[in-house]
Amino acid sequence: MISSTVLFYGNYVLCLCLGLLCVVFVSYWNTEWRGGFAWDASFLQFNWHPVLMVTGLVVLYGNAAILYRIPFTWSQRKQRWKLVHAALLLSSLFLSILGLCAVFDFHTGYHIPNLYSLHSWVGICTVVLFTAQWVLGLVGFLSPCSPLGFRKLLKPVHAWMGMAIFILSLASCLSVTRNADPPPITTNYIEALFANFLGVLIVAFGLVVLGILSNQRWKRLEPGQESSRSLLPGDN
Amino acid sequence: MISSTVLFYGNYVLCLCLGLLCVVFVSYWNTEWRGGFAWDASFLQFNWHPVLMVTGLVVLYGNAAILYRIPFTWSQRKQRWKLVHAALLLSSLFLSILGLCAVFDFHTGYHIPNLYSLHSWVGICTVVLFTAQWVLGLVGFLSPCSPLGFRKLLKPVHAWMGMAIFILSLASCLSVTRNADPPPITTNYIEALFANFLGVLIVAFGLVVLGILSNQRWKRLEPGQESSRSLLPGDN
Repeated sequence: MISSTVLFYGNYVLCLCLGLLCVVFVSYWNTEWRGGFAWDASFLQFNWHPVLMVTGLVVLYGNAAILYRIPFTWSQRKQRWKLVHAALLLSSLFLSILGLCAVFDFHTGYHIPNLYSLHSWVGICTVVLFTAQWVLGLVGFLSPCSPLGFRKLLKPVHAWMGMAIFILSLASCLSVTRNADPPPITTNYIEALFANFLGVLIVAFGLVVLGILSNQRWKRLEPGQESSRSLLPGDN
Repeated sequence: MISSTVLFYGNYVLCLCLGLLCVVFVSYWNTEWRGGFAWDASFLQFNWHPVLMVTGLVVLYGNAAILYRIPFTWSQRKQRWKLVHAALLLSSLFLSILGLCAVFDFHTGYHIPNLYSLHSWVGICTVVLFTAQWVLGLVGFLSPCSPLGFRKLLKPVHAWMGMAIFILSLASCLSVTRNADPPPITTNYIEALFANFLGVLIVAFGLVVLGILSNQRWKRLEPGQESSRSLLPGDN
């Protein structure tokens, strides 16, 4: 029988590899088929949008979400991992806001209205909720004057909201898919196939992260909970 | 403080309402803007595809997935709820396969190739995995000759696969979104807005179902696990 820890690290390595592949694929797609990058309110500025959103709001965010699940961190003080968690999420938020600037600038430059598609509705909700979640997390869990009762109340809400924001971020990515015209094989078709593979990678990354988050055996136990590990329902 | 049971039923009613709205919206969209329904390999047959997939693979499936979480069922014999769970999922599978027939027939009629888009890739994987999951669930949990050791091994895999299939089904729905042309407001724009709202409803339904599934306090405990409810991590 494979131990729970070995199984975790198997999933974790898979998560890291899929995340890296997502970043490589989204960058290569925009370089090879969409003309590369610039910051001049042109199409080339728009190309930063998918790269920054996938890197920030999917890959960095997903990795930050599962940080406390790494068994290696359990024996260490939680405070330092809280700081790593907050810093990773701040980088993720920064990249996401930069990604939004890229698309808003492009829209302004080309006189395209903002926020009329499902993609934009879900996407903007995701970033607004994420900002609120980050600020509330900072106040609730890192501020020394936050009372213990408030932390206890906030924790399940923070964990649930964190998962919901990740699902919304995956939903934003997938709701933008442009389905290719059918074959015959043309340059556009090859590009569309490549973009499809990027979609598959994002879905696979999301499934691995959500799988890790949903496994109770990989939760860091708080003081006083050690005895409950063997009694967790759903693990047998 | 609201009790855990009251909170569950609040979420459950929300889930039922959102599910109903999804079915109403997808049916109205295809009736009002896409010409209604037929089974003659035309566009009108294609219109069954979104209705059957959303009704079967999203709404019915989601409701079947959270069945064991209903506190009312906890005091009753699990066997009868296993049968309801299996029957709901069989109906969901039946509607999904009918939904696939609708699109394959339409493609054949119009000489459109099958399975070239991200939507079709994710969608077909979802239905294949769902079929395997249903058969394995039948053999593992309803067959009287399935050994207890096998059931214990299968249960966490079955629960995780069940959640993964639901996420894949949401991903399939969202990856087909046609983003509207920007305003000005035209009939097409109103249709696109309506379809966007359907997307928002599907995302909201998915979040509520996954929220219910992820809350450990709403899990039916197996014999011997009653004492662990108060020790569950992440709930305080």
